[in-house]
Amino acid sequence: MITVREKVRFVETDMMGVVHHSNYFRWFEMGRVEYLRQAGILLTEMMERGILFPITEVSCKYHSSAKFDDYILIETKMIDYSRVKMVFSYEVRREADGILLATGQTTNLFTTNGKITRLPAEYYSKLEKFTVK
Amino acid sequence: MITVREKVRFVETDMMGVVHHSNYFRWFEMGRVEYLRQAGILLTEMMERGILFPITEVSCKYHSSAKFDDYILIETKMIDYSRVKMVFSYEVRREADGILLATGQTTNLFTTNGKITRLPAEYYSKLEKFTVK
Amino acid sequence: MITVREKVRFVETDMMGVVHHSNYFRWFEMGRVEYLRQAGILLTEMMERGILFPITEVSCKYHSSAKFDDYILIETKMIDYSRVKMVFSYEVRREADGILLATGQTTNLFTTNGKITRLPAEYYSKLEKFTVK
Amino acid sequence: MITVREKVRFVETDMMGVVHHSNYFRWFEMGRVEYLRQAGILLTEMMERGILFPITEVSCKYHSSAKFDDYILIETKMIDYSRVKMVFSYEVRREADGILLATGQTTNLFTTNGKITRLPAEYYSKLEKFTVK
Repeated sequence: MITVREKVRFVETDMMGVVHHSNYFRWFEMGRVEYLRQAGILLTEMMERGILFPITEVSCKYHSSAKFDDYILIETKMIDYSRVKMVFSYEVRREADGILLATGQTTNLFTTNGKITRLPAEYYSKLEKFTVK
Repeated sequence: MITVREKVRFVETDMMGVVHHSNYFRWFEMGRVEYLRQAGILLTEMMERGILFPITEVSCKYHSSAKFDDYILIETKMIDYSRVKMVFSYEVRREADGILLATGQTTNLFTTNGKITRLPAEYYSKLEKFTVK
Repeated sequence: MITVREKVRFVETDMMGVVHHSNYFRWFEMGRVEYLRQAGILLTEMMERGILFPITEVSCKYHSSAKFDDYILIETKMIDYSRVKMVFSYEVRREADGILLATGQTTNLFTTNGKITRLPAEYYSKLEKFTVK
Repeated sequence: MITVREKVRFVETDMMGVVHHSNYFRWFEMGRVEYLRQAGILLTEMMERGILFPITEVSCKYHSSAKFDDYILIETKMIDYSRVKMVFSYEVRREADGILLATGQTTNLFTTNGKITRLPAEYYSKLEKFTVK
């Protein structure tokens, strides 16, 4: 599990006074990017090789509202993966009190030129090694 | 069913060249707001009465990528509702070719001062009338 | 002058209850994109030719607050241009009462591979013809 | 001067492959919020007292493009202030090479119920003390 710490931005709030629900997917993304980086997979390097990994499915349950100025912890796990996809799960907590704010899940496919592709073995083995840990 | 037409904004794209997946929830919201308006329920009026309707659960499946400058159609249905919640489903299509881009679902609760509340009868009957149609 | 009509989205508000100031630049962009389209210049076509037009300078004065659900009119003029840059000015008004919400200005340069380039004559003449009108 | 360190998010990029220009104002805001916090002025506390501080004017010059995954440093100074307004200036640099990405300026007014108000003396003296330093 990888934990990323972020601070809630003013612009992330809406007129109901709490963080707009769409922003949690942007936080999940920061967890996912960091997970992959620590596994040795850089998005920019992948993109230079022509491999994209579009999101095909997401979900989120909201338990409590994140508020402006909260520090949040984004806990990210890879719960399933293969040569063609990655499934991540997330928990977002308020740092101050540990309260669970949201849980979510996302699925990425690997694609080249818009078609599903298999992740090159060198990257796949990195994912494997990192995720077994 | 309510249909809202929107145009994809440049800022909604990301460096993969397509619309960032989080933005679909912002489009769903436009469909939901319009559905409620046509039913006779204005968010600002509700908020003035102290009734909020936070999102508690969302999901989305992405079928094809929306691109910059596409006109999109956001088709919104209320598929379940009660005095304490509303469940909406969405289909987003590219107008030019009718291709399905994404399908999604969201759940709102009604709350007052952070606690679940029952939607006042006058609003509930508006929802009923509009949704039966 | 080109006028684009938009509706204020819920997500564009912040916890002060009005539209976050950064969003006006996203509206200006919609005006600019439409201006260029009507002039016959499509961003995607330019990008395919390797011509980008990064923003180098922007400013905005805020006169009154846009609110959720307002219809706004984005009035866009090209006030200066050459083979290497375009300067646009904007006025954003609330449609309901005509109140001026914001005025702004932006400058784009034309670049290829990160270096300033001259706009190809065919595009430049389109800009000229459209702007004289 | 206050320095805030941020990481460029994937969602902040656009299809030109760099950070969308509107996002710099969101970064400036993070610098401004942190400046005020260190001075002892919390936005939420002010809002509870009915004091808002809408932005009335902003500008930004873009010198070089921030890219996905860059760490950036947002350097914030208060360059002018009175009982009714605050003027901040900003420099955003890429941490890795110190390159200046953007410079900007923003002006806030203090308001209560939509009218210009004078900042209460207790807050004003905090601003003074912190800014003299």
